Order: sequence, then structure tokens, then C-alpha cells
Amino acid sequence: MMYIAGVDIGGTNIKTGIVGLDGRVLKKSSIRTGVERPWEAVADDIAREVRSLADKLSVPLAQLKGVGVGCPGSINSETGCVDYANNIGWEGVPLSKGLSDRLGLSVRLCNDANAAALGEATFGAGRQYRDVVFITLGTGVGGGVIIGGKLFEGNESKGTELGHTVIQRGGELCTCGRRGCLEAYASATALIRDTKVAMRKNKDSLMWKAAPTLNDVSGRTAFDCAKEGDPAAKRVVDEYLEALGEGLCDFINIFRPEAIILGGGVCAQGDALLTPLRVFTKNFSYGGEHGPAVELLIATLGNDAGLIGAASLLL
Amino acid sequence: MMYIAGVDIGGTNIKTGIVGLDGRVLKKSSIRTGVERPWEAVADDIAREVRSLADKLSVPLAQLKGVGVGCPGSINSETGCVDYANNIGWEGVPLSKGLSDRLGLSVRLCNDANAAALGEATFGAGRQYRDVVFITLGTGVGGGVIIGGKLFEGNESKGTELGHTVIQRGGELCTCGRRGCLEAYASATALIRDTKVAMRKNKDSLMWKAAPTLNDVSGRTAFDCAKEGDPAAKRVVDEYLEALGEGLCDFINIFRPEAIILGGGVCAQGDALLTPLRVFTKNFSYGGEHGPAVELLIATLGNDAGLIGAASLLL
Repeated sequence: MMYIAGVDIGGTNIKTGIVGLDGRVLKKSSIRTGVERPWEAVADDIAREVRSLADKLSVPLAQLKGVGVGCPGSINSETGCVDYANNIGWEGVPLSKGLSDRLGLSVRLCNDANAAALGEATFGAGRQYRDVVFITLGTGVGGGVIIGGKLFEGNESKGTELGHTVIQRGGELCTCGRRGCLEAYASATALIRDTKVAMRKNKDSLMWKAAPTLNDVSGRTAFDCAKEGDPAAKRVVDEYLEALGEGLCDFINIFRPEAIILGGGVCAQGDALLTPLRVFTKNFSYGGEHGPAVELLIATLGNDAGLIGAASLLL
Repeated sequence: MMYIAGVDIGGTNIKTGIVGLDGRVLKKSSIRTGVERPWEAVADDIAREVRSLADKLSVPLAQLKGVGVGCPGSINSETGCVDYANNIGWEGVPLSKGLSDRLGLSVRLCNDANAAALGEATFGAGRQYRDVVFITLGTGVGGGVIIGGKLFEGNESKGTELGHTVIQRGGELCTCGRRGCLEAYASATALIRDTKVAMRKNKDSLMWKAAPTLNDVSGRTAFDCAKEGDPAAKRVVDEYLEALGEGLCDFINIFRPEAIILGGGVCAQGDALLTPLRVFTKNFSYGGEHGPAVELLIATLGNDAGLIGAASLLL
């Protein structure tokens, strides 16, 4: 039996797992990233976790096809190098080589959002499709694109920055420096911002019950109160869904994937998200009902998507 | 020696050519499309043109690798069927089979904008690149995407509707029914519309010299007068370039191609288009100067791009 090691590097924690060729996580661990350390120390830790997990499963390293790693930031998957990762403070880190030297295994590296996309497309919500667009609605809006069953990354793996496409010229300032990006409207951060604005304007809104102070506002506040019929909350949710819907229509018109998978914190809203978005995308995507249907789905692998996707780089 | 027949079906004319494996057009013809006729009559004409051109070159049909066809509208390149082509009035036309039956040759069919994209990427401005985005700035804004040297078309060939991505939510009404699409700002049609609006507002503009009546306005009017220093014309051009620039940044962030090729009528502006767009895309694409460079180029094959690209479907 062969297995794969999957690694999901985050700003706070590093998740490591031994994954079967069927995408099942057999054993996993989580350690602190410790971004203040030199990258070599982090690589030492990852190598130790891989050995330790394999050992616990009585799997010799020779039975590992290799190690797949998802890492935040700007990754060159061809060179196996972390070109620049702001939130872990890495620049020009030859991580693939570092791990390969430590473990004597082949190592594949990609961006963490791309890894999650590949995981969901291969073993999660998209497993029956070959052309999939994955979008995370979290602190930011990230994305990954699978074409013909394979991860599409663009030149030097710098493509599929789906959150940084403009839907509103001159609109809200985005973290990337442009104005009006999808991320500035469809991230959880944007949803929270707009919820707070609506609360300030509507002192009698139910949202003040759900979140007694503005610090209590979360990505759920507006969705929860909209369900209760609060008009101000409903406006926030409608506006959020329309902005996201415009983005989804753009991706449908560009990629015409078989399925779009939504991940990230906001996707916990489930049908409150999917049902209106299905209507919107049907109405406004190019060709309308004449075009091939695009399934809208919620991600199913949760926090393991990155780990499993990283592992599936070795498949 | 082997050759390929290329066919470019348009609303008015059908161009047919015999193309070498190096992309050179050895002989070509143009006939009326005659959209009022049944499609079978059009297929008869195309087959006759292919035979006649081959005959003039003393090339037996057996020396043709096949026939590549670019056709407007919604094409399913897998089934070889014209699903729906509004401007030639076709619906569910099995064109590949029709031509194959008439000529005894293998036939490949794709959308005309995709054919032009493939032509430019394979033998035109993009011949040294493998990842290319092609955008036509004409009556509408069309596009084609080449990934790894191959045409990317999306599910049922319904993708890469690059002109129908929204850059301005709730903005100008687009022909597709949505508001704010790139096409509604960056097409020659939009440029002419905005030129007329500016002329109505600026009775002393130089543009009234270049176009004595609003009916004389073309896609060149504002560009020509901006070069002469006319402030109203300059505002039209700046606004046009910024809208187009936003679209290009989106495509860079999504695909991170090696090159973007601009075709269509507006690309006659050459450096007046490229120079400001290069600055804009460098400033506003994700990762700015840290990302891999994306070349902006003007298409070089002109009206033969579709013909040559259709032929290269057989390569």
C-alpha cells in the first residue's frame, strides 16, 4: 500500500497528515508554525511530523509516494520555492528542496488556496467533476481552478487570484491596492464591515440584539437576523449575495466550469447562500438557461481540504 | 507536403484558405455567406471553395490534413455542432459532419473568436508564448484563451466570454442583458457611444472637426483628437483605457498569461493603446512588479487570424 504525506502551512499552525490514495486522512497532527524562526527550523519540524505520523501508522517512509505541501503566499510550484509569503515572513525559501533533503522523498509545493481547491475537486464536493472553480469566502477571497482534473496556476503559479477581479470600478479599497475587487465585497471581512455600517444606520435593527456591540459582529450576524426578517440585515445579505453573484457569473462566463465550490467561513450559511446564488447565476450568466448548467456546491472537506489537496499533488 | 483548409464564417462573408503547416496562407477566397439560405447550401459552397482552392494549387484533397472552421455563436467543438448562432440564424447545425460528408476530410469546428485567438497564439503575435489571452476590441469584446499552447474553451466550449465580465456593477447595459460588462465599456461600440456623449457636452471640442456630425463618429475620432490635445477627447480616451485596463488586470490576475494580445478595430491605435495600458497593468495587477511580466501586444495576422487559427485546429 502506498500513502502520501500532506502538509498545510498556515500563519498560526501547520497541519500534517498521512493520506491514503483514496484521499482519506489516516492520521494527522497540528503544530505551531512559529513564524519567528528561520525556515530551516520549520522544515525540521515538518520532517519530524511526517516521520512520526508514518511511524505511528507503521508505514515505512519508502511507502510514501512523496510529500505535498500547501503554503500561503506567492509560490512557484515549478521551482518548489516560496517566492514571497507575507504572513509567515518568508522570501525566496527553497522549501521543496529543504524537505526533500530531510526526508529523501519527492516534494510538491503549491499555494494553500490552490491546494484546498485541488482537495475539494479531487476528493470533496467536486469529485465527480473535471472542471471546477473553488472560491473561499474568508478573511479574503481566494480561489483555485481545476481544468481537466488538473490544477491550473498560470505563469510561475501566479494566476487564479479570483478575489482580485474588479466588480465595481472605483469602489471599496482592496488589500491589493486596487479599488472594487470582489474580495472587497464578498469576503467575510467585507460582510462584517457592511453589517457594522448597516447597524450604525439602523439603531432599531435586530442585529443589535445578535451583536450587542460592534465588536460582537461576525459573518453570521446579518445572515441570522435576515432569517428573522430584519429589513436592514436583509439588505446587507442581499447586497452581499449580489456582489458575490456578479463574481460567480464572471467566473462562469470565463471558465464555464461544471461546478463552482464555495469554501471558507461564510459557506457555513449553506442554502441561504446557495439558493439565491443559483437563481442569480442562472439569470445573469452568459447564454442564461441555454448554457450548460454550472453546479453551485458547498465545500465538504472543511479544514482538511488543504492537507488532502496538497497530498493529491502527488497523484 | 501536407496542408490544411481553414474557413472563417462571418455574418457577411466566408473566407476560405489553404494554409501550410507553418501557418502561411497559400491561397484564399471570399464568398457571400447568404444567411437566408439553408445551412446545407452554405456547406455546399464551403466544400466547393476548398476543392477549388486546392485545385488551383494542384494540391489533391488527400494532401489536406483536414478542414478547420471558425464560426460565430455558440459552438460545441466536441460535437462539431453550431448550437446557436444568432447573426447567421443557425441553430443545432451539424456543420462538422456536413462538411466531412461533402469532402471526405476530418473537420474541426470552434468559435470564431477562439479561432482568431488560436491563430494569433500559434502563428501571430503570440507565437513565442504558450499561455496567451487574446481580446478583440470590435463591435463587441470577444476573447480566447490559450493554456499550454492549447485552446481553452470551457465546458461544451461555452467559456472565455471575456467581454462579459462585469467591471462596473449596475453600469451600462450590455448586449448580454447584464449591466456593467467590460464589453459595455471597452468595445468600439462603447467608445463611439462615449465619444458622442462627450461631443454633445463639448460643442467646442476638436472632435466636431474630425466628425462634423455624430454619424461620422468612429472608434478613431477620440483617439485622433486626443493626440491633438483636445481635452474632451482626452477624457474619453483616458476613461476608455482605464476601463479596458481594469479588464486586462482581471485577466492577468486570473490567468497570469505570458502575453495578452489585442485585436479588433480599436487595436489600430497601436502604441496609443499599448503604452498607457502597460503602465496601468503594471501598477494594478496583483503582485505589481513582483509578479511575472505580462507582455501586451497588438495582433499581427489581421483579417487572416480566424482563417489561420481555424486551420491550426488540425495541428
